[in-house]
Amino acid sequence: LRLSEKGCGFGMDEKLGKLGEFGVIDLFRRMVRPARDWVSTGIGDDCAVLKLGGAERLLVTTDMLVEDVHFLRDGISPSQLGWKSMAVNLSDIAAMGGDPAAAFLALGLTPDIDRTFLNALRDGLLDCASRFGVDLLGGDTVASNGGLVLSLTVLGRASSTEVVTRNGAGPGDVVFVGGGVGDSAAGLHLLLGSPGQIDPADRGQLLKAHLEPQPQVELGRLLARNHLVTAMIDVSDGVLQDLGHLCEESQVGADLLADQLPVSGAVRRLALSAGRDPLDWALSGGEDYVLLFCVPSDREAEAIRLCEKELEIQVVPIGTIGKERRIRVRRDGVWTRPEELGYDHFRR
Amino acid sequence: LRLSEKGCGFGMDEKLGKLGEFGVIDLFRRMVRPARDWVSTGIGDDCAVLKLGGAERLLVTTDMLVEDVHFLRDGISPSQLGWKSMAVNLSDIAAMGGDPAAAFLALGLTPDIDRTFLNALRDGLLDCASRFGVDLLGGDTVASNGGLVLSLTVLGRASSTEVVTRNGAGPGDVVFVGGGVGDSAAGLHLLLGSPGQIDPADRGQLLKAHLEPQPQVELGRLLARNHLVTAMIDVSDGVLQDLGHLCEESQVGADLLADQLPVSGAVRRLALSAGRDPLDWALSGGEDYVLLFCVPSDREAEAIRLCEKELEIQVVPIGTIGKERRIRVRRDGVWTRPEELGYDHFRR
Repeated sequence: LRLSEKGCGFGMDEKLGKLGEFGVIDLFRRMVRPARDWVSTGIGDDCAVLKLGGAERLLVTTDMLVEDVHFLRDGISPSQLGWKSMAVNLSDIAAMGGDPAAAFLALGLTPDIDRTFLNALRDGLLDCASRFGVDLLGGDTVASNGGLVLSLTVLGRASSTEVVTRNGAGPGDVVFVGGGVGDSAAGLHLLLGSPGQIDPADRGQLLKAHLEPQPQVELGRLLARNHLVTAMIDVSDGVLQDLGHLCEESQVGADLLADQLPVSGAVRRLALSAGRDPLDWALSGGEDYVLLFCVPSDREAEAIRLCEKELEIQVVPIGTIGKERRIRVRRDGVWTRPEELGYDHFRR
Repeated sequence: LRLSEKGCGFGMDEKLGKLGEFGVIDLFRRMVRPARDWVSTGIGDDCAVLKLGGAERLLVTTDMLVEDVHFLRDGISPSQLGWKSMAVNLSDIAAMGGDPAAAFLALGLTPDIDRTFLNALRDGLLDCASRFGVDLLGGDTVASNGGLVLSLTVLGRASSTEVVTRNGAGPGDVVFVGGGVGDSAAGLHLLLGSPGQIDPADRGQLLKAHLEPQPQVELGRLLARNHLVTAMIDVSDGVLQDLGHLCEESQVGADLLADQLPVSGAVRRLALSAGRDPLDWALSGGEDYVLLFCVPSDREAEAIRLCEKELEIQVVPIGTIGKERRIRVRRDGVWTRPEELGYDHFRR
């Protein structure tokens, strides 16, 4: 999650710059003592996975949204903000193949927030919760001087045989995305008032993708239930970076066919008008909250058919997993490394 | 949790003033749809209680700490801040009689935070976690422009027969506290640079109470395991206010014997020197993080003996539960209502 079109919240000129977000995570991860027997997956996946007696697993994820870092107060309606803060957490549960169940909200409120704002925020949050069968069961409400802060923790459930982590991808697996990528980044481009002519329908589509993302909970469940996927992640940091995370955890690499990425007409038209590369938004824009997953090659057709039949979702093959631990991108028939394309943050 | 000596983060002149913290909670609580069968306790207790198959219950609590609202950067060391953010959450698990197990940290970092600060914060947090058998299993790291924000969610476990809520107190029950009250508020008084002479040992004790609270996890477990308590809460908002919460949830009232409150010599000496009333800190100071619990009258002696024998903790009877839904305070032999003593925030 980030608000600027390039780079995440930590700039290189800041004290933690060289450490960065993933450095901070690693700093905590390194110190954490060996997980006990009831911990199945700890820090380093979309969710932690806990064993709770029997075959059931508890999934836990936390995401924090901070004003002026992840959202601008006048760039998102309070109801959309409520929706989005829930949706990004549900997307993490979806990425594990889980069934989201309960949410806990810590809310840092600035003095200028009024009841109308708060009602709309609550309605958006509970709309999203209700849409995906989640109960809001607790939280904390505090004052914040700096800006509005929403920190949400979501619990989900899955059976032990259906939990999907990031670390099961194997050479030959086909890499899929569960929907279009780049819309959210293009929407952010519009939101930041950047140049580019666009018709109202396109504008609506792109803003909605950025402001009201739809977590692919049903898709994650379908894939997990049918044991179709070896590894899965949601696209929050961008296709390249999230594919990088998945490959790192699976100790593999990937060949990515950039030309096969499902990029909408709206994204292409805005990019053309704005003098931008639509694939840039698709590869590194992030916040698409579609699932990125790996399917054994002999089940590729089955996966496509099942998602179409059960959910009317077109999942799109975008590459293959390879043994060599590096990511290559093929574009216009030419293979390059992401670094050569200017993407230097594609992995930790 | 609050930083000012009087009132919580929401002043009356702010837009949400009349709503207040508990109003915001109720606003969310009202809208939450009827809890499903796997939810045993939702919003309105120290933790949510979830059924997870079998006799085991999952306890969940969330607390958010915001710079300049809950702490001043130069008033608490980073290691103490880490400790305290964990401790206040563990105290909520303790108040349900639970066994804390896993923590998830969402961290909003300002650009001026350096690695030394972060290392110390982590060490304090993990020290407290390790002391009470808790694993840090995940979280989120984001940039914050306003101030440092720590939002922690802690999961705990308890068997269904041992979970203690706020709502089981009955007339005749004896009200106890698990340790001294007022030290934390007196420590905050010192921290804010308020007047009052004090010797270094007293100063150390009071600051430590405020900056490094000790959650009474073992006490909570002991009481729950022995089925000694009918209701329990931790003293975060102050004895009067937290007793008010407990009484409200139990639909009872209480007679509080203020003169029996365990108030330390250090608190009394600072109050004398500062021209303050030590009972004021004890009754409404808050952030003591001792347990406040109700014991059937025929088990009063047993509770005292067991806590002394097993944990060397002196639990102190401070009043009794009554049928009439109001709180009375006896002080110097005279009964008054908290409102007459100037405490108007003792209940929602």
